[in-house]
Amino acid sequence: MTWSRDAAKPCDMTDLRPVGYVIGALVAILGLTMAVPLFVDLYFRNGDWQVFFEAGVITFVAGGSIALASSNAVSDRLSIQQIFLLTTTVWLVLPIFAGIPFIIGETQSSVTDAFFEAMSGMTTTGSTVFTGLDALPEGILLWRSMLQWFGGVGIIVVAMVFLPELRVGGMQVFRTEAFDTDGKVLPRAAEIASRISVIYLGLTVSCHVAYVAVGMPAFDALNHALTTVSTGGFSTHDASFGIYQGPAEYVASVFMILASLPFVRFVQILQGTWKPLWRDTQVHAYLGIIFTLVIAFSLYRLVVNNDNLEHSFREGIFNVTSIISGTGYASVDYQLWGALPAVAFFFIGLIGGCAGSTACSVKVFRYQLLIASLKAQISRIHSPHGIFSARYQGRAVGEDVISSVMAFFSFFIVSLGGIAVLLAATGLDFVTAISGAATAIGNIGPGLGDIIGPAGNFESLNDGAKWILAAAMLIGRLEVMSVYALFTVRFWRS
Amino acid sequence: MTWSRDAAKPCDMTDLRPVGYVIGALVAILGLTMAVPLFVDLYFRNGDWQVFFEAGVITFVAGGSIALASSNAVSDRLSIQQIFLLTTTVWLVLPIFAGIPFIIGETQSSVTDAFFEAMSGMTTTGSTVFTGLDALPEGILLWRSMLQWFGGVGIIVVAMVFLPELRVGGMQVFRTEAFDTDGKVLPRAAEIASRISVIYLGLTVSCHVAYVAVGMPAFDALNHALTTVSTGGFSTHDASFGIYQGPAEYVASVFMILASLPFVRFVQILQGTWKPLWRDTQVHAYLGIIFTLVIAFSLYRLVVNNDNLEHSFREGIFNVTSIISGTGYASVDYQLWGALPAVAFFFIGLIGGCAGSTACSVKVFRYQLLIASLKAQISRIHSPHGIFSARYQGRAVGEDVISSVMAFFSFFIVSLGGIAVLLAATGLDFVTAISGAATAIGNIGPGLGDIIGPAGNFESLNDGAKWILAAAMLIGRLEVMSVYALFTVRFWRS
Ligand SMILES: [K+]
Ligand SMILES: [K+]
Repeated sequence: MTWSRDAAKPCDMTDLRPVGYVIGALVAILGLTMAVPLFVDLYFRNGDWQVFFEAGVITFVAGGSIALASSNAVSDRLSIQQIFLLTTTVWLVLPIFAGIPFIIGETQSSVTDAFFEAMSGMTTTGSTVFTGLDALPEGILLWRSMLQWFGGVGIIVVAMVFLPELRVGGMQVFRTEAFDTDGKVLPRAAEIASRISVIYLGLTVSCHVAYVAVGMPAFDALNHALTTVSTGGFSTHDASFGIYQGPAEYVASVFMILASLPFVRFVQILQGTWKPLWRDTQVHAYLGIIFTLVIAFSLYRLVVNNDNLEHSFREGIFNVTSIISGTGYASVDYQLWGALPAVAFFFIGLIGGCAGSTACSVKVFRYQLLIASLKAQISRIHSPHGIFSARYQGRAVGEDVISSVMAFFSFFIVSLGGIAVLLAATGLDFVTAISGAATAIGNIGPGLGDIIGPAGNFESLNDGAKWILAAAMLIGRLEVMSVYALFTVRFWRS
Repeated sequence: MTWSRDAAKPCDMTDLRPVGYVIGALVAILGLTMAVPLFVDLYFRNGDWQVFFEAGVITFVAGGSIALASSNAVSDRLSIQQIFLLTTTVWLVLPIFAGIPFIIGETQSSVTDAFFEAMSGMTTTGSTVFTGLDALPEGILLWRSMLQWFGGVGIIVVAMVFLPELRVGGMQVFRTEAFDTDGKVLPRAAEIASRISVIYLGLTVSCHVAYVAVGMPAFDALNHALTTVSTGGFSTHDASFGIYQGPAEYVASVFMILASLPFVRFVQILQGTWKPLWRDTQVHAYLGIIFTLVIAFSLYRLVVNNDNLEHSFREGIFNVTSIISGTGYASVDYQLWGALPAVAFFFIGLIGGCAGSTACSVKVFRYQLLIASLKAQISRIHSPHGIFSARYQGRAVGEDVISSVMAFFSFFIVSLGGIAVLLAATGLDFVTAISGAATAIGNIGPGLGDIIGPAGNFESLNDGAKWILAAAMLIGRLEVMSVYALFTVRFWRS
């Protein structure tokens, strides 16, 4: 079958087949990628390779069937409802299949745990329900890392193509940088994906080489490279990054920062121009915040905790970049540093990286637009009938974009509260409920407290809490509104 | 001196004298009101009456001097900067003088404690640093209650006259209900204050009578009436409302709800029309939320905690209305009910009552506008170039109002986070820091945890934390933006 490029008009809004076709195709591809952990297990002579064979066949066949069943309505032009539906459904369906190896493999997970781990992977959250990671077969470990890597590149494409089209969360501010797709998001997505993939792959290989150069074993270096450039944060060890203290922390810091910058700037650099990167005020603000926080935490460790200079700086830069980029590696339980770091890291996680990267949470540009809007409002105090536009990156920004940004922020916080209440309803204490809600909806990874803190694990949570957290990851990863819109009557009205 | 009603143009923006005159006059009046606790102490034969004589004289003389020194620039027409400055300065200066009796009286407070208690009083927050309340002289206890009562009526005037004029936090949505003041806010404020005072006094007397009718001793009934209708929450007992379990909880619930409804509706009822009250969607939403939460908590107590029906319902309605109205009386340590109630009450405190009442926090109308804006945004998904206005109370609401509401919400949350980090920097743990920040900026009263929870007290906090919390109360009470605007260069630019 071919893309019917000349489809005269957008498909009927209630036609789910074009969505089903794309989902089916992606599921089938996911099945094919299971060949990678299969061969890795064969290489390491793990009997676990059969797991990936079975899961791969199931996934490929299921995906292929869905695609075939939907293939008589393929179009490269999707209605806005179809684009919304596709975005959320992709992140819902892929983890279902991605979790199969966790159920039938060495981890012998329950359905709940498998879905949680796969969702945590593909949303690049990085919270884990697995313990004894160090003893797991290489195939399973690599599969977890691969899920984050896929999720990372997937979210960049969504952030660059889908979200501006959907005009949610203020992402339409990045709309002018793309050309008008006129509903043809799929060819556009394919084009962006191929350009991004070069950069993403380049970053991954560089990160891998750098990890190996500082002494990390090749297999660990591969896994951590995959979960660093996706700001995912899964590790191959229960102690997370704790066993690689030293130069590897600097390598991780550099690549976590790179992975949380807007990827469109890297595309432009490949096209020969560095100027947009230097001029990007989002990048200025992000790096400025990191710089300030690293200095603050290093000083705190140095002066309050009496640590030595290099170690203070290294722990400062590694943990700050890990949390603000939403990677969520833990090299140390920073709750032991005192009350201030614990509370500070909670809120630093709610800052987030740059839009159009693998980073998550609220994101720097939204705070910038918030401040820009505030300035406009203060100007309006003086002349109530004057017209004052908020400005971003040197351009005037419409009130509809500002409303959209603030609606995102408000619903993000309201959702965080609602999720925390639901988690408490399953019996979790205040600290676990609040920090669990924040770390899930912000796609960060570790929470606070003894249970899900940097030294903890999500394994012991009840099933209800795991499903709530998995839903929160999905909602947060897709910028809240694109998920919520699906649940309104108004959205489905034509 | 007289109001120069014919002042040709607004005073020079940098002229602080018109502001100084009003502040001075209010301070002098505050000094005069100290005669009330003075006579109460005399009546109860407490030597403490001398405290109020001294403090009263100091306050009256200081206030009178400020007013006199500023009296050569009196105008009833204030510039917008002067209105902003006045609003914040009133709530900063009055607590300084209001705290004098706490320093020289039986409580022998430090300056920090006195300022904290007075600010907690006048912002109607109700967090206390005093223990041994049951043994304090009647004058001091009454003075605390009076501060909340003054703060309550003061904030209604600010919410009905000043904030719509300042166009902060979306309060301009209530602007059409007032006539255009053309800068003449002071005559307008005096007019509103006199209308409101009748209702406020009426509610207070009714509340007092009702408390006495259910068996509360007259002096306690007076104090609790003053702190109920102001949704303040100071009590005359360390156990707060805990010693008046029974019918008094129902009385309190009714009056806490009444005090958190829009007072403009009571004005209209006095004018003979009930219709605006029945039609007010803010009231519908608020009562609907209370109804739902009361049912939920009653069922929780009944089923999960195995309590009896009447006690479940009474504890449900009392604690829900106490927290959502921002009163903050504690009749029981609801943290003992389980994890869910503790987390739920934290977020219920962030809902708040109705605008134009003594209630505080985010307030119901902002959530309604948030939802209205969301609906408009979803409509915009279908037709990106269509014009869709959010609607509130049957009228279209401008994007500037929506931006203003969401800016409030965003800055409220960002401030909450910043305050929590500052509190943690003074050494407070996560739960105390976060819930302390929320209870202060939301003017609620109790926090969570062992230290400042419903069964706790703010006495043991360090001085730094107390100053931070007092600042948070001020910021929250004046709807965040009206305080922050003063700290921007742009605001002072003419
Ligand atoms: K992460
Ligand atoms: K209160």
